[in-house]
Amino acid sequence: MAVLTFGSIALDTITMPSGKTHRNVPGGSCSYFIHSAHFYSPVRVVAAVGRDFPKKYLDGFRRCRADLAGLQVIPDGTTFRWEGTYLPDMNNRTTDSLSFGVLASFQPVVPASFQDSPTVFLACAIPAMQLRILSQMRGKPLVVCDTIEVYIRENRQDLDKVIRRSQGMIVNDSEARLLSGEDNLVATALGLLRKYRLEFLVLKKGEHGGILAYQNQAYPFPAYPLAKVADPTGAGDSFAGGLVATLDQAKKIDLKTLKKAILNATVVASFACEGVSLSRLSRVSLADCRERAKKFAQAVSLG
Amino acid sequence: MAVLTFGSIALDTITMPSGKTHRNVPGGSCSYFIHSAHFYSPVRVVAAVGRDFPKKYLDGFRRCRADLAGLQVIPDGTTFRWEGTYLPDMNNRTTDSLSFGVLASFQPVVPASFQDSPTVFLACAIPAMQLRILSQMRGKPLVVCDTIEVYIRENRQDLDKVIRRSQGMIVNDSEARLLSGEDNLVATALGLLRKYRLEFLVLKKGEHGGILAYQNQAYPFPAYPLAKVADPTGAGDSFAGGLVATLDQAKKIDLKTLKKAILNATVVASFACEGVSLSRLSRVSLADCRERAKKFAQAVSLG
Repeated sequence: MAVLTFGSIALDTITMPSGKTHRNVPGGSCSYFIHSAHFYSPVRVVAAVGRDFPKKYLDGFRRCRADLAGLQVIPDGTTFRWEGTYLPDMNNRTTDSLSFGVLASFQPVVPASFQDSPTVFLACAIPAMQLRILSQMRGKPLVVCDTIEVYIRENRQDLDKVIRRSQGMIVNDSEARLLSGEDNLVATALGLLRKYRLEFLVLKKGEHGGILAYQNQAYPFPAYPLAKVADPTGAGDSFAGGLVATLDQAKKIDLKTLKKAILNATVVASFACEGVSLSRLSRVSLADCRERAKKFAQAVSLG
Repeated sequence: MAVLTFGSIALDTITMPSGKTHRNVPGGSCSYFIHSAHFYSPVRVVAAVGRDFPKKYLDGFRRCRADLAGLQVIPDGTTFRWEGTYLPDMNNRTTDSLSFGVLASFQPVVPASFQDSPTVFLACAIPAMQLRILSQMRGKPLVVCDTIEVYIRENRQDLDKVIRRSQGMIVNDSEARLLSGEDNLVATALGLLRKYRLEFLVLKKGEHGGILAYQNQAYPFPAYPLAKVADPTGAGDSFAGGLVATLDQAKKIDLKTLKKAILNATVVASFACEGVSLSRLSRVSLADCRERAKKFAQAVSLG
């Protein structure tokens, strides 16, 4: 058991509706994925940072027992940086500044010790880079991919190849609509499942939960109810971590496993939202996750 | 067991994104409520129509065994009419024309035979009219109310009285936010529950399901997944019908009953959306409802 994750590691500067700014906190898909997936399966990281990336954040990854053999620390580069501001509803945000740094010229290499990973999560990245990861894998890993709107618009051919080589996909509502050209989200989820011959697709709707599409059926699920969201940054990547690691641990895909994966994913995503950056997620235990999962499964049961 | 419902009966003219227009189809909160609630409990109607309201639609109400003793047919009046157009996403719509007709001067009277009804549903109406209904009731019925934004903005004092005299409330997300002045929907649902000392509140989110607030806890639930929505008009009133009638039948309010009510409500609302106006809802059977409820409860179960 092990999940290879390929994605970004960032230094985020996040301004909240209150006006408070949190500078250079750990961010990027990998950071959240590591801190959520490790509860359920070991994580192997392929990513890049600059020398400016604080050692204490790397120590945080190590406390999650992440294997960092695929983490390139580029001597003369700077870490990917994102600056954003949340609107009062805490669901929408503006990007105020982006600096790709080491990611601009990153050539990801999968270490030999990672090439037999049974599961691969391709967080959002340039589709050609995602394909480069897959080309370095041996065997037939379970591949789950994510993407964002810019690659759907501008790298569609490569992206289609990535999705066709994946068994599962995790996308949000606006990305899914853009991919399908369809308004209805249920039709979108089922249509993409069929079109790309995926084993499963999860369409995320943020605070509204999401839709699991599996074997031509749609299974809707709500999000964990939070009366206060401290910071939704990384909720989707944390969700992916809980989901993909649960599938890796189970070593199979069936409805029961997928639902357990959705449950774990929902729980770790909710913890991610309860603190700025990783401040809450990095402090919860597996027992905390299990307790919340049990209560949430009871709360959403309808009979 | 019986639910008194006070609300509107309308003739709707609905234009779909395809451009197709359905003229003078039955609408209004009562019409949908009758056709959904009757599966679970007998319905008593307090409403008004004009002479122009087609007999075949009244026959439809009678087939639901609705007691129409409180239905005033105003000889020289016209039925409330609404004309609207759905946008391509089928979630948003424009109101193109409104004609209140008999509702402009309607003085609702609760017949003596209705005054002991154990349950009352106050569909959205001028709050003073909702209070007039309550003042005519004997005993201590279970009261569940609904409202819309215009009354929150313009009749707040009367509306507050209505809500304080209710045990339950069903509102949609935008109405709930306007009532609470709060963005977060979970905090909104829990805050309104506390503020108005309600036994329960259901915050509806359309295609995203909703949140049940009960005993200071939030229970999120998804909507039934529909890959094609024929007409969402009346989905909320159908939801209310399934919910309130289930509570009336159970004669108690506890978490298990509320969840069963949410399940029945979700199912009848989904049938309402599958046909224009009442075309689908009026053709399903209790067995159809039970079958869909069973499948849906299984689909949303997370463990």
